[in-house]
Amino acid sequence: MIPTASYAAHTAKAPLAPYHFDRRDPREHDVVIEIEYCGVCHSDLHTVRDEWGKGSYPIVPGHEIVGRVIAVGPGVRKFKPGDLAGVGCMVDSCRECVNCKDDLEQFCMKGAVFTYASRDRHDGSATQGGYSSHIVVDQDFVLHMPENLDLAAAAPLLCAGITTYSPLKHWKVGKGSKVGVVGLGGLGHMALKLAHAFGAQVVQFTTSESKRADALRLGAHDVVLSNDEEQMKQHAGSFDFILDTVSASHDLDVYLRMLKRDGTMALVGVPEKPTPLAAGALIFGRRSLAGSLIGGIAETQEMLDFCGKHGIVSDIEKIRIQDINEAYERMLKSDVKYRFVIDMASLKAAAA
Amino acid sequence: MIPTASYAAHTAKAPLAPYHFDRRDPREHDVVIEIEYCGVCHSDLHTVRDEWGKGSYPIVPGHEIVGRVIAVGPGVRKFKPGDLAGVGCMVDSCRECVNCKDDLEQFCMKGAVFTYASRDRHDGSATQGGYSSHIVVDQDFVLHMPENLDLAAAAPLLCAGITTYSPLKHWKVGKGSKVGVVGLGGLGHMALKLAHAFGAQVVQFTTSESKRADALRLGAHDVVLSNDEEQMKQHAGSFDFILDTVSASHDLDVYLRMLKRDGTMALVGVPEKPTPLAAGALIFGRRSLAGSLIGGIAETQEMLDFCGKHGIVSDIEKIRIQDINEAYERMLKSDVKYRFVIDMASLKAAAA
Repeated sequence: MIPTASYAAHTAKAPLAPYHFDRRDPREHDVVIEIEYCGVCHSDLHTVRDEWGKGSYPIVPGHEIVGRVIAVGPGVRKFKPGDLAGVGCMVDSCRECVNCKDDLEQFCMKGAVFTYASRDRHDGSATQGGYSSHIVVDQDFVLHMPENLDLAAAAPLLCAGITTYSPLKHWKVGKGSKVGVVGLGGLGHMALKLAHAFGAQVVQFTTSESKRADALRLGAHDVVLSNDEEQMKQHAGSFDFILDTVSASHDLDVYLRMLKRDGTMALVGVPEKPTPLAAGALIFGRRSLAGSLIGGIAETQEMLDFCGKHGIVSDIEKIRIQDINEAYERMLKSDVKYRFVIDMASLKAAAA
Repeated sequence: MIPTASYAAHTAKAPLAPYHFDRRDPREHDVVIEIEYCGVCHSDLHTVRDEWGKGSYPIVPGHEIVGRVIAVGPGVRKFKPGDLAGVGCMVDSCRECVNCKDDLEQFCMKGAVFTYASRDRHDGSATQGGYSSHIVVDQDFVLHMPENLDLAAAAPLLCAGITTYSPLKHWKVGKGSKVGVVGLGGLGHMALKLAHAFGAQVVQFTTSESKRADALRLGAHDVVLSNDEEQMKQHAGSFDFILDTVSASHDLDVYLRMLKRDGTMALVGVPEKPTPLAAGALIFGRRSLAGSLIGGIAETQEMLDFCGKHGIVSDIEKIRIQDINEAYERMLKSDVKYRFVIDMASLKAAAA
């Protein structure tokens, strides 16, 4: 067994606190990773506070994991000790259903095994995430990290990166498309960088003029204040695709009306409450409102390779694991540009 | 000028009553049609009661119009006196915008001219619909009716037919697809017939067991009670496409969850109030909720030709124009199988 240091939520109400547990010894196809950095995603907070009702405590969150391979099982061919490695939101799936066969394991019909707060398919144990010193994952769910990227800043690609890359690709954003991004946070800022790299004309929608400079720096060609009717009118009916990264409940119709005929707006955030939708914005323009969920493993690797080639990483603020509870409070206030990433060396320092 | 007998709404609150007015003499490209039958659509009722706020009274409703050409303008090549002719929801558009060029005049960026309660592009006069003895329409917006179909039963194809045909075609329903139809009224019953003719596996969703026999007769291969959780569970995640024909506000999520990964549900009815939508049903399955609006003129002709070839018409109840107000009351109670069609001979009889 592999002694593992971590920070865990022990109840829905308690702050995260140190927690020691054992990771399994590597099975035939497992890769053992010593974690160097782990990004902090809103899902971590939702899960540890039991807002999604998945809680079986203790929970070690974290699914933007990067580090180095330190051991492999006897059947592993894809990784060797010393390799850089990444782990995102999933660590297993059935591999047999139509969605798994289509490289869309996130929609596994038997249920993908998520990186934390899920159950291992073999022994039923709780999966535990990346706010930890080590993780053991089947090689098919481990990603190769590009060597040229800053490793800490690349960690958020494993969730924020693929969550925005996948819909932009699926709805064929590229040269000649006009793309809108709603929300400028961890997901939104990645969407700007990626859509820009795909060659699209990129517009940031925001309610806050103060975000203009940053949006332009991150890849937007234009910024539209969505609470300014005149500005919105000028862009009405002109977008091929809009990626809506806001998870708070908000008016969808105003953005749907920005789409061209046959345009699509994709949601990647799940608001707590159902959002009122007026069918007219869809009907008068044959528009679509869609949803998208992270991306499959093959596409995640494609995204990482793309980011390596184009030098794309997240804008991050590095923190010590000891500061995670404060980071959560700041994240709730959107006080982060644009992703916290935990330097796991702080965990070792504390243990030493 | 062409003296025209009709029934019109003179105010939002008054019942329809006889109204005499003049249609214009045919312009260069106009076709003059003596109307034989006109279908009764829910939109007629919404419009005359000013529920859509378009009212400039008097309003002669009706946009499922069939009859015979009695005269043509000097530039008309597509029709000659004696031809059968149909007119649907539109009588003109700008013909120059990208949507018109794409044969999707219903999305004309300058605004399609609708058959009634709209404004003529040339003289600004109010357009008046098919509850009338004659209509004068530019040849490009007049359809050829198949000679083999019962003309009265073919009238509803001009709105109910194309409204369901267009989304079924756009989302590629055919052999090998599993298609759901929500609602069994004027639109729903056409959706069953068309989807069946396209070779799809067709399932009717209904809350009423009493509709089973009719749904099966009209083309459904199976009927699912949407308020029976067990039945719904059996079909969850199995549909390629769902056409939702219900215009009353209703729960969309339960139907979205019936879609396969990447499936689409299209709405063709506009509920009065926004409908609450939970993003989860879209995100967990990369599903889409779309809207569709009638169809372009070229596609309407394609639909009529298809219906001619396959002997598809609407199930109708023929009424006299004098009974239109009673028909409206019955339509509000869904007491019609499945479309009222006015026999315009009754108008002449009254005038005689």
